[in-house]
Amino acid sequence: MAPQLDGYFKQVDTSAGKFIERLRQAVAIPSISAEPQRRPDVVRMSKFLEEQLKSIGATVQAHPLGPQPGHPELELPPVLVARYGNDKNKRTVLVYGHYDVQPAEKSDGWNSEPFELTIDEKDRMFGRGSTDDKGPVLGWINAIQAHQEANIDFPVNLMMCFEGMEEYGSEGLEDFIHKEAKQGGVLHGADVVCISDNYWLGTEKPCLTYGLRGCNYYGVTISGPGQDLHSGVFGGSAQEPMTDLVRVLGSLVDTHGQIQIPGVMDMVAPVTDEEKDLYPGIAYSMDNLFESLGSKTSIHEDKDRTLMARWRFPSLSVHGIEGAFAGAGAKTVIPAKVTGKFSIRTVPNIESDKLDQIVFKHVKDIFAKLGSKNTLDVQLIHAGPWWVASPKHWNFEAAGKAVERVFGIKPDFTREGGSIPITITFEQATGKNVLLLPMGSSTDAAHSINEKLDRRNYIEGIKLLGAYLHYVAEEKMD
Amino acid sequence: MAPQLDGYFKQVDTSAGKFIERLRQAVAIPSISAEPQRRPDVVRMSKFLEEQLKSIGATVQAHPLGPQPGHPELELPPVLVARYGNDKNKRTVLVYGHYDVQPAEKSDGWNSEPFELTIDEKDRMFGRGSTDDKGPVLGWINAIQAHQEANIDFPVNLMMCFEGMEEYGSEGLEDFIHKEAKQGGVLHGADVVCISDNYWLGTEKPCLTYGLRGCNYYGVTISGPGQDLHSGVFGGSAQEPMTDLVRVLGSLVDTHGQIQIPGVMDMVAPVTDEEKDLYPGIAYSMDNLFESLGSKTSIHEDKDRTLMARWRFPSLSVHGIEGAFAGAGAKTVIPAKVTGKFSIRTVPNIESDKLDQIVFKHVKDIFAKLGSKNTLDVQLIHAGPWWVASPKHWNFEAAGKAVERVFGIKPDFTREGGSIPITITFEQATGKNVLLLPMGSSTDAAHSINEKLDRRNYIEGIKLLGAYLHYVAEEKMD
Repeated sequence: MAPQLDGYFKQVDTSAGKFIERLRQAVAIPSISAEPQRRPDVVRMSKFLEEQLKSIGATVQAHPLGPQPGHPELELPPVLVARYGNDKNKRTVLVYGHYDVQPAEKSDGWNSEPFELTIDEKDRMFGRGSTDDKGPVLGWINAIQAHQEANIDFPVNLMMCFEGMEEYGSEGLEDFIHKEAKQGGVLHGADVVCISDNYWLGTEKPCLTYGLRGCNYYGVTISGPGQDLHSGVFGGSAQEPMTDLVRVLGSLVDTHGQIQIPGVMDMVAPVTDEEKDLYPGIAYSMDNLFESLGSKTSIHEDKDRTLMARWRFPSLSVHGIEGAFAGAGAKTVIPAKVTGKFSIRTVPNIESDKLDQIVFKHVKDIFAKLGSKNTLDVQLIHAGPWWVASPKHWNFEAAGKAVERVFGIKPDFTREGGSIPITITFEQATGKNVLLLPMGSSTDAAHSINEKLDRRNYIEGIKLLGAYLHYVAEEKMD
Repeated sequence: MAPQLDGYFKQVDTSAGKFIERLRQAVAIPSISAEPQRRPDVVRMSKFLEEQLKSIGATVQAHPLGPQPGHPELELPPVLVARYGNDKNKRTVLVYGHYDVQPAEKSDGWNSEPFELTIDEKDRMFGRGSTDDKGPVLGWINAIQAHQEANIDFPVNLMMCFEGMEEYGSEGLEDFIHKEAKQGGVLHGADVVCISDNYWLGTEKPCLTYGLRGCNYYGVTISGPGQDLHSGVFGGSAQEPMTDLVRVLGSLVDTHGQIQIPGVMDMVAPVTDEEKDLYPGIAYSMDNLFESLGSKTSIHEDKDRTLMARWRFPSLSVHGIEGAFAGAGAKTVIPAKVTGKFSIRTVPNIESDKLDQIVFKHVKDIFAKLGSKNTLDVQLIHAGPWWVASPKHWNFEAAGKAVERVFGIKPDFTREGGSIPITITFEQATGKNVLLLPMGSSTDAAHSINEKLDRRNYIEGIKLLGAYLHYVAEEKMD
């Protein structure tokens, strides 16, 4: 029997103003985890959430994580673990979100104050954290509140895990989850896991996400002179690390995205015909891509190959150079030590360790050919694995029905090009299926200037989260 | 008849402590011209110099230069023009120096406080500006004072021009010199010009400098997306400006310093046999180079080719990239717009305009071969011409005799790899011979951490500046 959701939906619409006000209060707290001086604001944000959770009758514990690695004077913000409902006849759903945000300054190019929720005539709600990830986090709280206000029984036990360091590598969280997901831990006992921290593929059609690329991030350091040199005095008599580095970086990938490191593509799982058939039906167009890019500088000319390139093929990006002149204007320096940064997005069946070896060998081979007296060092800075789940799991089935109920359309089943390492941590620690259930759309500009969440995505998203819990409560387990 | 200098030299030795104290006071003023918030310190430094000049009986005028271009709220520091002596029977020598300094922070790696003159057991006097250029500027003042204290007639009329923006492009100075060197101007009437703002080739033997390389500084901008992108989401589907840029930058020069841009080397004046013969006698060794580099990563294996590479061949250095990720750690950004910065040091007979055309064409050709949809822009950021004077001029002859009198050795006649654009301005504006007469040595680390001036170079340098004025007063004009 399909869940009765009309009362709940109506209540969400009725309470929409209140829910937007809650988001406004959350956005007003600049909880930037990457900036040590903002740490008190991150903690203030955790207190705000704690109050909101308590106000709807959830029990909340703020778990300290100790000092930040490398910053003994700086305490990590707490992980909030909240519970709503403790009925052993109900299923238990573990949800995750984060209450910290990316850095933002008006002067970066924002059209409005980044920490004032600003709603325009198209009902776009601009503000840092609106979509990433304060909107979704509050979505769970709002869903509970709307059930109470409409006097509808909450269908599951909800276990919520909200962290404050996601935008800075989720410091300390992995160990916490592994420890607390065990018998006796505060995260033990979930039947399924749901994370709302990614985005629709486009702007109209919701999606459920069952795969993520991994990321191996490398640094190539080339050094020579004992200190930076003046190019007038030493240009022509010293071998320059930058000369070598740009040649090494130029050997990694071509304009068309083809990775030039021998052996990388050999590890990629071949595209099956069955897989190929999945793509044509997905609601995405080159215009969607062009809109997100803000340009037409795509590698591929068609949608299917673009999505495959994003989801199931590796890519290599050169991010920048540490140690070289990076300012405006002109500086006649010969940098003594420069580190090129690049990363490879990984997919099945790339083995992380083997990839490292291939990358190191390639970089060393290219450098050797230069015949340079400079010194090379290449290293892995960090690695996060790729993840692919089964979209046929009952957790996904339930979410698919919820999407259809709220939006009147079946969701696309998507993968993501980026990595959300905590996804795999939850999967491994709980042994349960993890669903990525996005609230925001592809145009939300998370991490960029003018981040926003559309009113529709927020309000319908609250309906979706609630509906999902009803369906997951009833769905036949595999 | 050789000038009688013993009394003057003895007085300089006697007053050495006072002269070092004067340098200590000057170094203590952090007159960093590149940092707007330090502008009051630059002005404070000009006042200090003004007081010192007045204390020895010079007349001083502080000439305002108006607001800094691009910074209407920021007044440029004044040019100080001082005169000591106004005897129409004496020759008039125009000297130039600058009282501003490069940025410096202890945390950059200094072993001592950069703005506290710190003298070690080897009599090395560490401090920002010690050698560049406060030591030489005070050298002229000290020379006057020692003459007064020893009761020796000052041999020339000394016209001093000291600016406060040298380390930031000598903003406003060029126009000032051209205007004031004319009949009726405050810089009119010099017989010769002397600039003490460069360095010995090594550490033991003084030199006189008669040539400088020029510098054409370029920016290559490649842009594509409307804003920075997340490499997880867009890696593989968007053409990346950085991918193109590192390939373009990699096409400019090789590890061995060979410029790869067709046509550049064709413009370089051939090395004559006569010229070749100048090099073996010059006091310089590969060990001198290795010491300055702090490494053995030289391009050439022998001294002569190293000096030629520095003085009379062009070189190309890649300085860095604006717009890419330049920080520590890992950031998974696809930069939307990146500008690679590189410069070419120019020599006779490279024509600046023609060089620009050749560079632009090469960059465009390489970019076209990439087949990229991104947008390319290449531009000249600034250009300063090369300069070569006659080392046979009587100004150089006088300086050569002064060196021999003070140090007991004939100087090397050198060129410099760097550019001092104001040299050419003085030559053009006054129509007189310009001599570069360095005080510091090759190990002084101007612009770097731990900048220093050896006590010997300062004290003997004061003797040299004074002796030079005596010889220049008597030398037979060509």
